[in-house]
Amino acid sequence: MNTENIPDIIVSRIPVYLRALQRMSENGITSTSSQELSEKVRISAAQIRKDLSQFGEFGKQGTGYHIPFLMDRLRQILKVDRIWDVAVVGMGDIGHALARYPGFANRGFRVAMCFDSDPAKIGTKVGDFVIRDVANMQADVKEAGIKMAMITVPAAAAQDVVDKLVEVGVCGFLNYAPLSLQVPPGIKVQHIDPAVGLQRMTYYIE
Amino acid sequence: MNTENIPDIIVSRIPVYLRALQRMSENGITSTSSQELSEKVRISAAQIRKDLSQFGEFGKQGTGYHIPFLMDRLRQILKVDRIWDVAVVGMGDIGHALARYPGFANRGFRVAMCFDSDPAKIGTKVGDFVIRDVANMQADVKEAGIKMAMITVPAAAAQDVVDKLVEVGVCGFLNYAPLSLQVPPGIKVQHIDPAVGLQRMTYYIE
Repeated sequence: MNTENIPDIIVSRIPVYLRALQRMSENGITSTSSQELSEKVRISAAQIRKDLSQFGEFGKQGTGYHIPFLMDRLRQILKVDRIWDVAVVGMGDIGHALARYPGFANRGFRVAMCFDSDPAKIGTKVGDFVIRDVANMQADVKEAGIKMAMITVPAAAAQDVVDKLVEVGVCGFLNYAPLSLQVPPGIKVQHIDPAVGLQRMTYYIE
Repeated sequence: MNTENIPDIIVSRIPVYLRALQRMSENGITSTSSQELSEKVRISAAQIRKDLSQFGEFGKQGTGYHIPFLMDRLRQILKVDRIWDVAVVGMGDIGHALARYPGFANRGFRVAMCFDSDPAKIGTKVGDFVIRDVANMQADVKEAGIKMAMITVPAAAAQDVVDKLVEVGVCGFLNYAPLSLQVPPGIKVQHIDPAVGLQRMTYYIE
C-alpha cells in the first residue's frame, strides 16, 4: 500500500487513536469498534474508518478491530515500533518535567541526554541524567545519532539551538519556546505552548 | 461583522499570529506585512490574509499592518484583552512548571490557584501559591468564578476532576493527562501530550 501521500491531518490523528487503544489494552480490552473508539477520542466513527483505511484493512465487518493487531500496525506506521532517543535542551522547570516524564514509556521514546548553558546546572543530576554543557551539544548528539529533540530554552535562544541541532542530523523538534521555529524543508516541528492552547478556547467562552 | 461561524481551524491560527506580532512588538517593530508575518509563522501570506479578513479589515494595500492595532483587535477577538484566572489541578512536575510558567504574562492568563490530593503536598508552597486540597476544589473554584483549568493529574483521575469542574462552571480545559476527555457540548478541551507530538513527527523520518 502506498502511504507516501497521506495528508498531514490524518497522520496527526493516528497517535490519538493509538493512545486510546493503548489505554483500552492496559484495561484488558482486546477488541473494539469504530463506534467505541469514536466515543474515546471524540472523532466520528466514519472519520476513524476513513483515516485507518488509508493504511490498509484493519477491521472486519461485524467484529470490529482486534486491538493488539491494530496497535502493532499503527506503531509500525508511526515508526514507534522502536525506541527513539530524544535530547532535552534547556533544563528549567519544563525541561526537568520532561526529563522525568513517565508518559514516554511504551510510546516509542526515551530521554537520552539533557543540556543547559548554566554553569550552576551543568554536572548536576535530574532523575537519572547528569545535565550536560550545551557547548558540547553538537558533538554529543551527533555521536549518539539522536534524531529528535525537545527545546525548552528561552525564546531568544531557541532558533540558534535548533540550527545547531539540524546541522548534526536532528530532524524532529518538539518546541516549548514561545515562537515559531524556522527549519529547512524535511525537518519537522511540533509546537507546545500552553498560552496558545488557552487562547484557542477563550474565543468560545461567552 | 458576524464572527459567529468562523471555522475552528482559523480560530486556532489566531493565537499563533498574535504570538508572532507580540514578539515583533517586543523587538520594537510597529508594522508588518502578510509576507513578513508568513516567514515568522510558517503559514502562507495568502492564508494569513484570508484568515484575518474573516474578522475585518486590518491592513492597507501597500502599507501592511500596524502591529499595535492588529494585536489589540486579535486580543479582543480571542477575548484575551482581559486576564483569565486559571486553576492548576495536579501538582507533579508539570503542575509545578505551569504554576511558575512565565509565558502567561501579557497573554491573557494568570494561574490563580493550585490543587493536589497528596496530604504531603497540601499546604506547601509552589512559587507564590499554597497548594490547596482537591477536596475543596469545587467550592474554591466556584467562589472565585474560575472558567479555565489545566489538568495535570494521572490519566485515571482526570475525567473525574474534569466532571467536577464542569459542574462548577469551568468551560475550558488544557489537558496534560494522556487521554481524550469527555465533556458536554459547549465545553472546550485542548490536549497537550508530548508523546503525541513526537509521534506526529517520527512518521516522516526516513
